[in-house]
Amino acid sequence: MPMVEGKTRVIIEAVQPEIDGGRFPIKRTIGEEVTVEADIFADGHESLTALLRHRGEGEPDWTETPMEFLVNDRWRGTFAVDKIGSYRYTITAWVDRFKSWRQDLLKRISAHQKDLEVNLLVGANIIAEAQARASKRDGKLMAEWIDTLQSKQVTQKAKAKLALSDAVTRIMERYADRRFAVTYPEELEVAVDREKARFSSWYEMFPHSCAPRPGQHGTFRDCEAWLPYVAEMGFDILYLPPIHPIGHTNRKGKNNTLTAAPDDPGTPWAIGAEEGGHKAIHPQLGTLQDFHRLMRKAQEYGIEVALDMAFQCSPDHPYVKEHPEWFQWRPDGTIQYAENPPKKYQDIYPLDFGSENWQELWEELKSVVLFWIENGVRIFRVDNPHTKPFSFWEWLIGGIKADHPDVIFLSEAFTRPKIMYQLAKLGFSQSYTYFTWRNVKWELEQYFNELTRPPVSEFYRPNLWPNTPDILNNYLRDGGRPAFIARLVLAATLGANYGIYGPAFELCENRRKDEISEEYLDSEKYEIKHWDIERRDSLKGIISLVNKARRENPALQSDRGLRFHAVDNDQLICYSKCTPYGANVVLVVVNLDYRYKQSGWVALSLDELGIAPDQPYQVHDLLNGAIYTWQGPRNYVELNPSKLPAHIFRVEKTAPEKARLTENVTSKKGIFLAGQ
Amino acid sequence: MPMVEGKTRVIIEAVQPEIDGGRFPIKRTIGEEVTVEADIFADGHESLTALLRHRGEGEPDWTETPMEFLVNDRWRGTFAVDKIGSYRYTITAWVDRFKSWRQDLLKRISAHQKDLEVNLLVGANIIAEAQARASKRDGKLMAEWIDTLQSKQVTQKAKAKLALSDAVTRIMERYADRRFAVTYPEELEVAVDREKARFSSWYEMFPHSCAPRPGQHGTFRDCEAWLPYVAEMGFDILYLPPIHPIGHTNRKGKNNTLTAAPDDPGTPWAIGAEEGGHKAIHPQLGTLQDFHRLMRKAQEYGIEVALDMAFQCSPDHPYVKEHPEWFQWRPDGTIQYAENPPKKYQDIYPLDFGSENWQELWEELKSVVLFWIENGVRIFRVDNPHTKPFSFWEWLIGGIKADHPDVIFLSEAFTRPKIMYQLAKLGFSQSYTYFTWRNVKWELEQYFNELTRPPVSEFYRPNLWPNTPDILNNYLRDGGRPAFIARLVLAATLGANYGIYGPAFELCENRRKDEISEEYLDSEKYEIKHWDIERRDSLKGIISLVNKARRENPALQSDRGLRFHAVDNDQLICYSKCTPYGANVVLVVVNLDYRYKQSGWVALSLDELGIAPDQPYQVHDLLNGAIYTWQGPRNYVELNPSKLPAHIFRVEKTAPEKARLTENVTSKKGIFLAGQ
Repeated sequence: MPMVEGKTRVIIEAVQPEIDGGRFPIKRTIGEEVTVEADIFADGHESLTALLRHRGEGEPDWTETPMEFLVNDRWRGTFAVDKIGSYRYTITAWVDRFKSWRQDLLKRISAHQKDLEVNLLVGANIIAEAQARASKRDGKLMAEWIDTLQSKQVTQKAKAKLALSDAVTRIMERYADRRFAVTYPEELEVAVDREKARFSSWYEMFPHSCAPRPGQHGTFRDCEAWLPYVAEMGFDILYLPPIHPIGHTNRKGKNNTLTAAPDDPGTPWAIGAEEGGHKAIHPQLGTLQDFHRLMRKAQEYGIEVALDMAFQCSPDHPYVKEHPEWFQWRPDGTIQYAENPPKKYQDIYPLDFGSENWQELWEELKSVVLFWIENGVRIFRVDNPHTKPFSFWEWLIGGIKADHPDVIFLSEAFTRPKIMYQLAKLGFSQSYTYFTWRNVKWELEQYFNELTRPPVSEFYRPNLWPNTPDILNNYLRDGGRPAFIARLVLAATLGANYGIYGPAFELCENRRKDEISEEYLDSEKYEIKHWDIERRDSLKGIISLVNKARRENPALQSDRGLRFHAVDNDQLICYSKCTPYGANVVLVVVNLDYRYKQSGWVALSLDELGIAPDQPYQVHDLLNGAIYTWQGPRNYVELNPSKLPAHIFRVEKTAPEKARLTENVTSKKGIFLAGQ
Repeated sequence: MPMVEGKTRVIIEAVQPEIDGGRFPIKRTIGEEVTVEADIFADGHESLTALLRHRGEGEPDWTETPMEFLVNDRWRGTFAVDKIGSYRYTITAWVDRFKSWRQDLLKRISAHQKDLEVNLLVGANIIAEAQARASKRDGKLMAEWIDTLQSKQVTQKAKAKLALSDAVTRIMERYADRRFAVTYPEELEVAVDREKARFSSWYEMFPHSCAPRPGQHGTFRDCEAWLPYVAEMGFDILYLPPIHPIGHTNRKGKNNTLTAAPDDPGTPWAIGAEEGGHKAIHPQLGTLQDFHRLMRKAQEYGIEVALDMAFQCSPDHPYVKEHPEWFQWRPDGTIQYAENPPKKYQDIYPLDFGSENWQELWEELKSVVLFWIENGVRIFRVDNPHTKPFSFWEWLIGGIKADHPDVIFLSEAFTRPKIMYQLAKLGFSQSYTYFTWRNVKWELEQYFNELTRPPVSEFYRPNLWPNTPDILNNYLRDGGRPAFIARLVLAATLGANYGIYGPAFELCENRRKDEISEEYLDSEKYEIKHWDIERRDSLKGIISLVNKARRENPALQSDRGLRFHAVDNDQLICYSKCTPYGANVVLVVVNLDYRYKQSGWVALSLDELGIAPDQPYQVHDLLNGAIYTWQGPRNYVELNPSKLPAHIFRVEKTAPEKARLTENVTSKKGIFLAGQ
């Protein structure tokens, strides 16, 4: 056991946030805060000073922020991150001799000890030591203090007053003796993304169905015509399934049948044909120039285009000929297609990430991502990342983000929880969730308490989808329109990131292929659809209200600050979201029963909303414009699914008159009732 | 981002037990088990193999134990430690190609797939690869299997049967492809102590009060006469306050007064006088030879002598003259005595562990410990370790235990929780607790749930004291005899390690010096007492029954396996302790109200006691010999403090006849009633 420096006495441990001992960064977006806590203590009873240190990538020096003592040897400090990229943080702390001496002096004074002369001389000595480290100017001041404390002419009372003064405290903080400071051995990382990683509204749409005339194959040009519609609903990301050439060999027909008709488009996920692979564009959609034009037009509407990144190949993909070693060959000389017995995907060959030639494969796939980045794409929805090695993703995302820190990767892994969390830890900016299958109150509460609190909230950004082209769950199938509205409101307010697969969603498409799978009947994955988005019962009106509420309420733009409140009815779920300092508070109540009217009493935790028990407050329904004045925790709510199964209230602590002026009550009414 | 080996795909994380990322060892005693859990998973859906590895210090090779899959990617394995010292453990795991293939084959068979020939050939290839690693003998067997799987003459059914056979599985496990195995990067440590670190019964006694005649100063020879008494009560550690020369300067008088009378002994903690310091023996107690003789005699009674290790000095300690630099000097030329304003300890100088000459001081203090080890002492109760640097203790204990792994250190730190835990982490074998101040049900339950479960239970061994020479708390003062019995039973059954300060305890001494402090009136720390241990109301009878119950019931010899059970009366506390596999179960009920009889219904968690709801079971009271037959979870209990405020039941799941035969009911009765 070697003798360590005996004068370094401070222990710093249980630092939070810290993911897996510092192995992975925590995540933030620009402008957010990082609050760090730690157990910091030393032997004995002396006073400590603890500083939180942080620095952005490339900054040579630490910025130091004092940490405050909480309770039970727990300390806390906060810093903000204001640029994209990487930050580091750590903690330094020491036994503070001056602070300890000051504390001791205060104790003696409260204990009415008479003779403090020797103690004051001890103080003078401590100041004299610090003086050696001081600037000339401060040193002069300190010399005066030392003289005073040592003087026989000055009264003990005056000396004590000087010793305890703010001026002395401030200067002594500046020249604290840090020789035996302990610094936490880990430099922990914060990965800082742009805002959209935290707050985004996704709209997934098949370009092949965008043509104005039924039966025609849609093009990028056709997609342009949809932009005003998507923008009006308030979405800011337009996510397209793969836009690459689609294979012909073993192409699937309508409803995933084994034989395709000549005009069946094939699933866009069967990537690659004679026209090219992952860097090519499906000729029926248009050219690369058309794609650039779509992105440019989208930008004019405040919409970013996200691409699907599905690392797999149709049997016709150029890789199959050029790199047969990237696939798994069977003893009969065929390539192993994707298969999960009894399911078979004969139109798709998985890539073999562990082949002997894996390095070349990995580099090629990275070049695919870089290709689309060079073509202006900054958001990728990654298909099935859980079937590729973790080290591949860490290498790929790490490498990409080092040069392009504004790129966002959404992990489409619907698999076991530890795997989903691991993918998020190693770099994915956002992740799909089990939201789709959480439909009753207790499971929603339990799941979102897990997702929105540390440690998960430090590395996992949920992206909530009520439906996807693969998933039409029982709740939507059985509940129809009220169920779609309830799930929309839940997704858009429980998650700062959410998305829908449209127009199937806003048109409440709920016909399933069979009883067992969750697949749509006549799934758009295998055929061209023609959607009537002008239908009177479309949810587009309520969707735009919900997205407007999201844009106008910062509380809905972060996953932090979620709090469930009790309701005496299990069909009603109630929760609030708050900004960190409580300036914006949104309260949501949803009726989970799509059949019957439900009512009940909510019991709000008012203190967590910053409302006094005797203070009246207004709740403004952002969906129908109604305003209620409430007081105290218990309030009555009633929601009729055939009208509107949810409230999204903005909570106003100001006077009702002022609030009413800022609210256009009548104009918003009726939109969502059109389909009743 | 460097490219890591793409074929190593397994993640091993959230390993438990692991203290502070492996910074500190977990603790066990000889013969105990270490159960290790971890999250182990890879991308995709293939099968994994995970092995728990462990090795004792100096063993060149790991011993490997298969881990079993639990749920949600959690795995578990267990190993036992069978020698004192240090063990290491870690985990290794890999994607198991054969296992995965076998699993896939089973899936295909359940899905009634017809043509498995190609799949069986894949299996043959995997076996052929493993064959290259096999012994000649096994290789021959494998060659036959490969032939069979490739043969056109053998039916598919017969091939599948062979492929899925236990023989193939076993051989393929032996020659698994470990090339891309991942090993957890930390080698975690287990510190293994002798049994007494886990299970011990301490008796603290002042030698100066052991003389047969009142007023006389006791000697080590006098102490020998007490050994039968201590042994009869069932204690196995006799702990003596400091036995060194006591200072004269500023010696404290009776009741901690500032002036000592000529025959006042002084507190044993004011260590050091002209006769010597920490390596000398107080002349009034005897010689080093007398001390050796006491230890030898104690051993004959199964008792080990523990010494007090108080690193502080009286003003007369030789260190003060020889090493003035080891003390803190004040500007007036005096040494800073121990002080916690308004309290002053003028008879004690603290050592300055951070002095310029700290290395020499530390080495000297280590030599003190080594001196007593050379003189046969193996157990040290360390006074106020929390006022000395953590790094000192880590260095001292680590150094001592490297050469003397059988030494036990008890930490006497009554301070903030994080500090107490830190001292345990860095090496103390046992620790004092807040037990003394936990007197009502909810706080006992809360505190012992914290102490006896991970992570605390992995590094902290509580040692429970109802009283100490410094602490006579309100509960004992106010409650008298029933309170003493209740606290005895709680200490001895909630903790596998416990102790009492006697004879003050068994004689129910409960007079306090004043209302504010917890000090005894006429404290033995400052004067020689003469105790009448033959008093009829002594608790010695019940103490020996309680210690007998501890010796005879392994469940009481470990802090693991504690479980609280509900009682519908807050004055009654009920808990069970079980051995790991449930062979021994003890159930304790204590009436915490020292004034009134209390009754209630306990609601036992029978499944945790291994009892079926419809199975009758017997509970044998080890204090009064009574036997009750119970059934189901709810049972009535009634405890009268003026008789006996506690049950210690051994739970017997066998037939009542057999149980009764092994129990001598009448002979034990009445002992504890003597004082009523």
